[in-house]
Amino acid sequence: MASIPGSVYSALAHRLATYEGEVYPLHIGDTWMEPAVGCRMQDLTVEEYPGMHRYSSPQGLRGLLEAIAERMTLRTGLETKADSVLVAAGATGALGAVAGAIVEPGAEVLILAPYWPLISGIVRSFHGTPVPVPIIGSVESAAAAVETLDDLLTERTVALYLNTPNNPTGRTLPAPWLEALTGWARSNELWILADEVYEDYLYTGEHTYTRPLAPERTFSVHSFSKALGMAGNRCGYVVGPPEVMHELRKVSTHTFYSTPTAAQLAALRALEGAGDRWIAEARERYRELGMMAAEKLRVPPPEGSTFLFLDVSSKLDERGLVGFLEDCVERGLFVAPGPSFGPYPHHIRVCFTSAEPEVVERGVEVLARVLYG
Amino acid sequence: MASIPGSVYSALAHRLATYEGEVYPLHIGDTWMEPAVGCRMQDLTVEEYPGMHRYSSPQGLRGLLEAIAERMTLRTGLETKADSVLVAAGATGALGAVAGAIVEPGAEVLILAPYWPLISGIVRSFHGTPVPVPIIGSVESAAAAVETLDDLLTERTVALYLNTPNNPTGRTLPAPWLEALTGWARSNELWILADEVYEDYLYTGEHTYTRPLAPERTFSVHSFSKALGMAGNRCGYVVGPPEVMHELRKVSTHTFYSTPTAAQLAALRALEGAGDRWIAEARERYRELGMMAAEKLRVPPPEGSTFLFLDVSSKLDERGLVGFLEDCVERGLFVAPGPSFGPYPHHIRVCFTSAEPEVVERGVEVLARVLYG
Repeated sequence: MASIPGSVYSALAHRLATYEGEVYPLHIGDTWMEPAVGCRMQDLTVEEYPGMHRYSSPQGLRGLLEAIAERMTLRTGLETKADSVLVAAGATGALGAVAGAIVEPGAEVLILAPYWPLISGIVRSFHGTPVPVPIIGSVESAAAAVETLDDLLTERTVALYLNTPNNPTGRTLPAPWLEALTGWARSNELWILADEVYEDYLYTGEHTYTRPLAPERTFSVHSFSKALGMAGNRCGYVVGPPEVMHELRKVSTHTFYSTPTAAQLAALRALEGAGDRWIAEARERYRELGMMAAEKLRVPPPEGSTFLFLDVSSKLDERGLVGFLEDCVERGLFVAPGPSFGPYPHHIRVCFTSAEPEVVERGVEVLARVLYG
Repeated sequence: MASIPGSVYSALAHRLATYEGEVYPLHIGDTWMEPAVGCRMQDLTVEEYPGMHRYSSPQGLRGLLEAIAERMTLRTGLETKADSVLVAAGATGALGAVAGAIVEPGAEVLILAPYWPLISGIVRSFHGTPVPVPIIGSVESAAAAVETLDDLLTERTVALYLNTPNNPTGRTLPAPWLEALTGWARSNELWILADEVYEDYLYTGEHTYTRPLAPERTFSVHSFSKALGMAGNRCGYVVGPPEVMHELRKVSTHTFYSTPTAAQLAALRALEGAGDRWIAEARERYRELGMMAAEKLRVPPPEGSTFLFLDVSSKLDERGLVGFLEDCVERGLFVAPGPSFGPYPHHIRVCFTSAEPEVVERGVEVLARVLYG
């Protein structure tokens, strides 16, 4: 998904060309499940929705905006109205709209690492500078996290990006950490970009929403892609302070115009009923897969998201991480290389939901053999 | 569609609130026709396309890229391969990817005016400066056009944008003009952005493609939205020099990630057969509507696109264009104000395909009465 894994794997393409066994695509962040019945493209007809292939409002369909606002109010306890919401081309489009609105050339965005690979390129696309801040798994306390941030703060810093539940680590940021981080952002007058696309996929405890902690400066980003198995539909949303949302709409209008109308109708149908059951089922299946993968790979189980992030430094030889990836590819196994997620030259990310469960299980077993013989 | 008409019309919303008659939405650039049977969302099933709601490649589906390359080769006579093509979130996403790739902060893009409203904001979104160049309908010869361009060229100029068949004027740029413009761009080492989304909608003569005239520097932009009545699907594409397309993919990946998978499948089905018949039928119906509208509005018939651009200066009173728009809105009629398209404070744009033909006809009659009593 990021350019780095792409280039690594194109260099390995020749090895795959002669490979004839089963392939395990654990490098992709996606699901094997089809979306809920009633929320698929085939369920959307021009008879029921005349004009559904035409332009719709750049902000989003009115009904969807209102359903999202209601859901956000319910989930976060913070009264949220439709004018705080922008429906966007996935979380990517949503974060692009935020970045385009707040990043002037040379502005710096602090990015808690390890991070979702695209955030770095999103900031760069609008001529900003992403500044990775290794925190998750690196520092032990919220106070230490704040100290690390203080060291990297400059007069060009405009925002702090965080992602919880976290892609790639499978960890979550505890509530006291979020309180410390948002308090620090407030005292330094920074925007907060809270990427919460895995909010529905926690395997222990409840998700803590960031926006209620600092509603005046937080853009929270959510996605039907991850929540409902609709990544190809390109539909997500961002919720933020109503008085600045028109700045985000300017950018979204000029980078993708509007979110696909059909994708919005599918999302609305999911919010209106069929989605919750699908999510509950997906969560149980994801949880089992996460437990299975963690056990076989001898790491702690994921707290959330659909990933495990493994330090494989003890298994690297003189060929480094690329050699490790080669050894995997020769067995049909693809994993995502650590450098896509920040300064992690000795890590790999594994997605435990990107293929049918039995394929994932066999892929994890292949990886376990590479790691532990 | 642009921010200017939006704000004009929100100021007029109170007048519409009490209006009870028929509404004529001739300000939107869209079609009343549903897409071809076989190319609608309801025709795309998970049984036929398993995984069709998942992520697809950021560049586009392989089959669609190849079908586009083949079509471009056939239409332009210039051998085009899939590595020259990026499928994007409509022409907006396509032009955003080009702008993001070539515009550094402060770079200037010359924009032949009148122009498609969003191009200005697209350039600004990536911190560039749009420089309108009034040409279409303003200068009489290709030589005069080049002279105007020469006057506006600076050391910060990086590209020239043109749109033919033209939104909003309904005119086309003749081949000798395109030769002169591309020659001028080449001698000044500029990129060329050729927005050709109305290539299928010419009512006289043949469309001249710009890319064969300067393939080393031209990005041509095309759209399934306009060609096939799929604006809500968000699927278009850009074709350019293969050696720079990876720069465009960086931007598209980081602003909308990929074009919706279902939209790409619908586009592919259209290219494989059902689309050509639909286009032929639409072209005939659009042609008749354009003739009808031009005759009633006492202007020359459109050469292409789905618009007429009218100078209404002789009909403006001390209230200016806003007053004119008010008079229209009081009769249920919406038209797009000239300033959205460049320095045209006394023009309006009318779309003659944005509603059912009989609604368009009645709307045009309302406008004719406003104009000519």
